[in-house]
Amino acid sequence: MSSTAGQVISCKAAVAWEAGKPLVIEEVEVAPPQAMEVRLKILFTSLCHTDVYFWEAKGQTPMFPRIFGHEAGGIVESVGEGVTDLEPGDHVLPVFTGECKECRHCKSEESNMCDLLRINTDRGVMLNDGKSRFSVRGQPIYHFVGTSTFSEYTVVHAGCVAKINPAAPLDIVCVLSCGISTGLGATLNVAKPEKGSSVAIFGLGAVGLAAAEGARIAGASRIIGVDLNSNRFEEAKKFGVTEFVNPKDYDKPVQEVIAEMTDGGVDRSVECTGSINAMISAFECVHDGWGVAVLVGVPNKDDSFKTHPINFLNEKTLKGTFFGNYKPRSDLPSVVEKYMNKELELEKFITHEVPFLRNQQGFRVHA
Amino acid sequence: MSSTAGQVISCKAAVAWEAGKPLVIEEVEVAPPQAMEVRLKILFTSLCHTDVYFWEAKGQTPMFPRIFGHEAGGIVESVGEGVTDLEPGDHVLPVFTGECKECRHCKSEESNMCDLLRINTDRGVMLNDGKSRFSVRGQPIYHFVGTSTFSEYTVVHAGCVAKINPAAPLDIVCVLSCGISTGLGATLNVAKPEKGSSVAIFGLGAVGLAAAEGARIAGASRIIGVDLNSNRFEEAKKFGVTEFVNPKDYDKPVQEVIAEMTDGGVDRSVECTGSINAMISAFECVHDGWGVAVLVGVPNKDDSFKTHPINFLNEKTLKGTFFGNYKPRSDLPSVVEKYMNKELELEKFITHEVPFLRNQQGFRVHA
Repeated sequence: MSSTAGQVISCKAAVAWEAGKPLVIEEVEVAPPQAMEVRLKILFTSLCHTDVYFWEAKGQTPMFPRIFGHEAGGIVESVGEGVTDLEPGDHVLPVFTGECKECRHCKSEESNMCDLLRINTDRGVMLNDGKSRFSVRGQPIYHFVGTSTFSEYTVVHAGCVAKINPAAPLDIVCVLSCGISTGLGATLNVAKPEKGSSVAIFGLGAVGLAAAEGARIAGASRIIGVDLNSNRFEEAKKFGVTEFVNPKDYDKPVQEVIAEMTDGGVDRSVECTGSINAMISAFECVHDGWGVAVLVGVPNKDDSFKTHPINFLNEKTLKGTFFGNYKPRSDLPSVVEKYMNKELELEKFITHEVPFLRNQQGFRVHA
Repeated sequence: MSSTAGQVISCKAAVAWEAGKPLVIEEVEVAPPQAMEVRLKILFTSLCHTDVYFWEAKGQTPMFPRIFGHEAGGIVESVGEGVTDLEPGDHVLPVFTGECKECRHCKSEESNMCDLLRINTDRGVMLNDGKSRFSVRGQPIYHFVGTSTFSEYTVVHAGCVAKINPAAPLDIVCVLSCGISTGLGATLNVAKPEKGSSVAIFGLGAVGLAAAEGARIAGASRIIGVDLNSNRFEEAKKFGVTEFVNPKDYDKPVQEVIAEMTDGGVDRSVECTGSINAMISAFECVHDGWGVAVLVGVPNKDDSFKTHPINFLNEKTLKGTFFGNYKPRSDLPSVVEKYMNKELELEKFITHEVPFLRNQQGFRVHA
């Protein structure tokens, strides 16, 4: 039992008081965890585009003041009533979505979209009492996607915490709590390329590079990176990408370019941009008979996916994925093990390391 | 060796001399099979809507005179050079698509879209010499989808022939050479519903009823039939359909009706109408997290499949299938065995039986 258990903890956090305004480092009060909650000491956190997106709050429901942050690694400080599988000192990754292990999704082998704890960007409070555990000078501060890791301490639902190997370096594996797992899982769990197959990756940001890393791990022999920014191609070679296509270099649709490069189409494709045109290209560039396209990028609200239905009749498959189809509690520990046994390379995803809050050794910024 | 081997056979066939004009029973000459071909004595043939569609030739490439027919059962009369796995007397189902066993599709476990023998409705001749094996008074008569079963004898590529259990009644199992396998395989091979799951079937014609039969065999507990014609509902009960929805009875989209009936959506859906709106409904009515929709119906040339991409991100899967993903030579024999061991019921698909040609005991017309 830690000496702070059951007590309010005062610590530093980066508070977003208003949309688009600089975060302010404040002394916040973090209440103890209630039933099925845990309080974590956050040691490392990354910055993800989703944090920026909701901080800008352009078209999103504005919810301020709020503590952002959702890619992180930490240690359990104390646990609330009913939490049986976590204890103080456990090394954990908090995750923006959860796994209650009770609902139809958690009981399905095919889904990770937990009815209880699925990501909810419009909820700024804890489920147990509908209130925040954070306050500054008595004023409640909203949570963000159940994690709020831009704080030295945070309270999260126990279902949103993956307990991992304590030997794993938290400053590295913390990137697995969001985008890297999303891209990696899209390839390994959903696209499932066979050894020797061809895979096209649309978008070579962090998620796309993680998807490429998945293709490399699966033994794909051709990994074709597609991006409108050719400056990304050199870096992408580190992630196993073997060929590059910049759609701007061609007069014809990129799906035709890829079909010509691959005698009819790639075996698998993974779309990591969120652009509706890239989604359509990613689907249409897979081979008939066996091709599978996986959508990862988050589309705009008004987008419409359009294609000729004969593409489906020709036995192409279109799937999407959320968080790489990983169930956070059940599956993330084994992803950490993939890193520990050197199957998965994570260092190359980390481009910057900056000091952030007093207790946090680092602030990771991925590619 | 049959006494007719190597000889031209004269027999009766129903010849379509012009688009949309009544078929004429003619005495045709059927040449011996060439390399990799077999000549079959057709004992039973069914009428499929596809025959009618190409006979009408509205928008299709007109190719006349032609002998239609592609759902049939027969016996090998003689084999051409190089045919090693068939011999005279074998009971067979000719199939409108084929399996060369050599191409990338045949070697892939996922595809049945043979590069060499995939259905080609614009080809009216044999591959070996680019000529027809049929003639009437010296005039060549085109083949149809490589089968032309509206003839007492026909010549087909050996790769388009499934050798089946000789104990199977050809007058019954002949329906497996097209639509019944298409619907059955769409469910059993592609949708793959689990025992106890819910399945929506769009379109309760022969293919849709076969898809329902597949769901029944798979042990689905709810099989929801969707059709604009409520008169089909009573008959569909025989095929295991447990509930019915006529979209005309509701003011809201049928996908919403089904979502309400099933607490969020069905586990699987199979679309057997070819209507683009039904395709979209069939996709959108599956449950997020694990739902799989399978398209079977052939769309119009100008159709566009449209949906919001978030449906994919919510982990719904969309697939299509061709001939139920069955490889004709490798897989159809086992479908016949499913009938033989009473797992699959076929009699209920046969609604009419009429005499046709001299040697053919019956002309099957399915639901």
